[in-house]
Amino acid sequence: MDDGAKPLNSDELKNLLEKKQLREIKIKISELNENDIAAFLEELDTEKATVVFRLLPKDLATDVFACMSIEFQKSIIDSVTDKELVAIIEDLAVDDAVDILEELPSNIVSKILNAATPQTRKEINQFLKYPDSSAGSVMTSEYVKLSKEYTVKEALDVIRKQGVDKETIYTCYVVEKSRILIGVVTLKDLLLSHDDELIEDIMDENVIKAHTLDDKEEVSDMFNKYDLLALPVVDKENRIVGIVTVDDAVDVMEEEATEDIEKMAAITPSEHPYLRSTVFEIWKQRIPWLMLLMISATFTGMILTKFEDALSVQVALTAFIPMLMDTGGNTGSQASVTIIRGLSLGDIEFSDIFQVIWKEFRVSILCGITLAAVGFGKIMLVDRMLMGNTSITIPVALVVSISLVFTIIIAKFVGCTLPMFAKKIGFDPAVMASPFITTIVDALSLLVYMNVAVLILHI
Amino acid sequence: MDDGAKPLNSDELKNLLEKKQLREIKIKISELNENDIAAFLEELDTEKATVVFRLLPKDLATDVFACMSIEFQKSIIDSVTDKELVAIIEDLAVDDAVDILEELPSNIVSKILNAATPQTRKEINQFLKYPDSSAGSVMTSEYVKLSKEYTVKEALDVIRKQGVDKETIYTCYVVEKSRILIGVVTLKDLLLSHDDELIEDIMDENVIKAHTLDDKEEVSDMFNKYDLLALPVVDKENRIVGIVTVDDAVDVMEEEATEDIEKMAAITPSEHPYLRSTVFEIWKQRIPWLMLLMISATFTGMILTKFEDALSVQVALTAFIPMLMDTGGNTGSQASVTIIRGLSLGDIEFSDIFQVIWKEFRVSILCGITLAAVGFGKIMLVDRMLMGNTSITIPVALVVSISLVFTIIIAKFVGCTLPMFAKKIGFDPAVMASPFITTIVDALSLLVYMNVAVLILHI
Repeated sequence: MDDGAKPLNSDELKNLLEKKQLREIKIKISELNENDIAAFLEELDTEKATVVFRLLPKDLATDVFACMSIEFQKSIIDSVTDKELVAIIEDLAVDDAVDILEELPSNIVSKILNAATPQTRKEINQFLKYPDSSAGSVMTSEYVKLSKEYTVKEALDVIRKQGVDKETIYTCYVVEKSRILIGVVTLKDLLLSHDDELIEDIMDENVIKAHTLDDKEEVSDMFNKYDLLALPVVDKENRIVGIVTVDDAVDVMEEEATEDIEKMAAITPSEHPYLRSTVFEIWKQRIPWLMLLMISATFTGMILTKFEDALSVQVALTAFIPMLMDTGGNTGSQASVTIIRGLSLGDIEFSDIFQVIWKEFRVSILCGITLAAVGFGKIMLVDRMLMGNTSITIPVALVVSISLVFTIIIAKFVGCTLPMFAKKIGFDPAVMASPFITTIVDALSLLVYMNVAVLILHI
Repeated sequence: MDDGAKPLNSDELKNLLEKKQLREIKIKISELNENDIAAFLEELDTEKATVVFRLLPKDLATDVFACMSIEFQKSIIDSVTDKELVAIIEDLAVDDAVDILEELPSNIVSKILNAATPQTRKEINQFLKYPDSSAGSVMTSEYVKLSKEYTVKEALDVIRKQGVDKETIYTCYVVEKSRILIGVVTLKDLLLSHDDELIEDIMDENVIKAHTLDDKEEVSDMFNKYDLLALPVVDKENRIVGIVTVDDAVDVMEEEATEDIEKMAAITPSEHPYLRSTVFEIWKQRIPWLMLLMISATFTGMILTKFEDALSVQVALTAFIPMLMDTGGNTGSQASVTIIRGLSLGDIEFSDIFQVIWKEFRVSILCGITLAAVGFGKIMLVDRMLMGNTSITIPVALVVSISLVFTIIIAKFVGCTLPMFAKKIGFDPAVMASPFITTIVDALSLLVYMNVAVLILHI
């Protein structure tokens, strides 16, 4: 991949920095992408980074600032003057400013809010009040408003005049008095129409929109479903309060996928990247689930204790417990993870539950028979003949194989139904993944195994 | 969420369809979004769906067709005339046409290719030859080309003339002879510049681009990193062959996240949605891993067999085997899943391995001590006193707690290093998730448990 020969430039720039050739650096660095500049600055120590940061043209400085990690933003804020800080904050898109403020300690937040103009302060405060999971929290107020009486030419003039500060000019929103949203028109529509056509004649009145308190995950799903570049966010009175752009929707998608994956592995999701989290933070994310699952495993232990006598008669049975429990856990999580992902992408609904159960039942019969046959052969050939363990008889191998079939049927059933019921009662289905399924299936598969053993071996 | 009162319209439209008021339907349906129309058509039987499909204006019909599922596209292709088919194919964006053709049976593909014009056929054939995982496979050839000698006014005129058929007009590519890519200019840049400025003066020469054979996952990561709306794809001679637009990049992101999740649950990824896959297909996705993992569990069984005598002396120990193995598996998958996701988002690199190991070591000490303390208390209070199992002594509880600490340290170590080594040697780290880690950690935790037991209990 060729994303602009960054590594080369990085060394070259560090070299120039050593030689204090600041003018050279200024020229070189201004040609780079803001993401690459931010990455380069983070390689330097704070002092040098601040020097280079101050060399950047004002607009670029703000863009670079928005790309930095929170830790680095803090050190930049600490080392610039109040005047420079105002310039950065005023220049940031409101949603970026809000994201940054939410992460900063409160003393720095008030320093920034005091430095901002009253208008910016008002907007930031309004945005800060939306819950973290809502559409409101990811929107920006910098969008293009048009009036339905404009001609195409007038609209294009408005865009040319206001466009510099807007997060996108490619989708424009047609509003009536008090910002009531009545239509949407793309820049493509405008460019492909005649100059004297009226906006109300070319605008699309079927506006796909979200409400401020809608879940941001649903909002990002709409981008996916309708291939949008931007989505307007309205309040209860259908007044437009902001827009969500596709780059922010993409961030939400990645965030939600990470959260789902973390929940599936019994980890409490966190907003911090792994390498920046402290050991204690990671411990807090992981320990509650480990504790809960460890305590739940008591039931499996109790079942084993109950069948202690049977096991001491047929000690050979013990050796197959891990294999049975693991296979149960694995088949169960295959089913649950498939269903969880389907639910989260909207491919599967609760109403599909009978179709899902029927499908999983047939899959588990197929998987069960295959594994039982292979398992039987393996036990007789490897465990009995190759390893010479004569306590492993045909009835023992039969007990294991029959238990396998039932375990797999039960595991797939539990694995596919639990996530759907979790979703139905308003829980996140992702927590019903491998670890929970494994714990439940462990206990059930042991029960099956012991009962089949008692039945066949008469122990 | 208000996405256009679709359910209401669906019933209303079905009603109109019953009464055969086709003109009414034509008016109502033309106002809807193509995704919603496709969803509505899929609710109908094929015959009625074809009737309604034919009512759609030509452009809309093509958009709706692109939104349908493959099964439904097949039935539409079967029921329209060759002439109608040509109209649809010619009107589709080339990348959409290619996606559809890849899924269709070969007799229908040749029917379509025969129906297409030579130009379209050539383009489609070119696209069909890129590997499924490459940037080439997701690009489209419908982009706007500009020449650096154009003025802004001339460029805008070109866009107005060619724009209708282009997948995006918001990012335009500046090319020299033989399509050598020399710069990029956004429609925003054009609109905010004076009419008589030259393209070469406003274009950005630092083009972020991909090569045709780059992995499409890396391409979608670039959209995320640089907040792009479109990315040009060039061949070895830096000639532009197509562009990838953000909506296609978003599809790739979702696809890759699903693939990662499936691999983490030991499922071979599939392109088909769950509800549309046959039982046999699902079985094929799942059985190889189940089989492999079942056979691997043999080692755990062998360890148990080896310690059969020790276990028959201290039968109480058996009851804690599931709890130890589960906790080991759970802590191990927490670590592995965190690392796998970090690797896949680019937050973690192989060079971070020592930092990761050191962090996981400290986390595992914290988790180990917490769980050992709680486990010890639980064993003495619940298992010994409440359940009255006198064979559970303080030494037995100690054996379990000490084994817990070591198991957790080992599990976190295995969980964090295996995915990184997998990545290093060019494997997908996602396969090193829960099931594999669990199988390995099971065996290791049993070894620890049995050795600690022999050491402390002298059995």
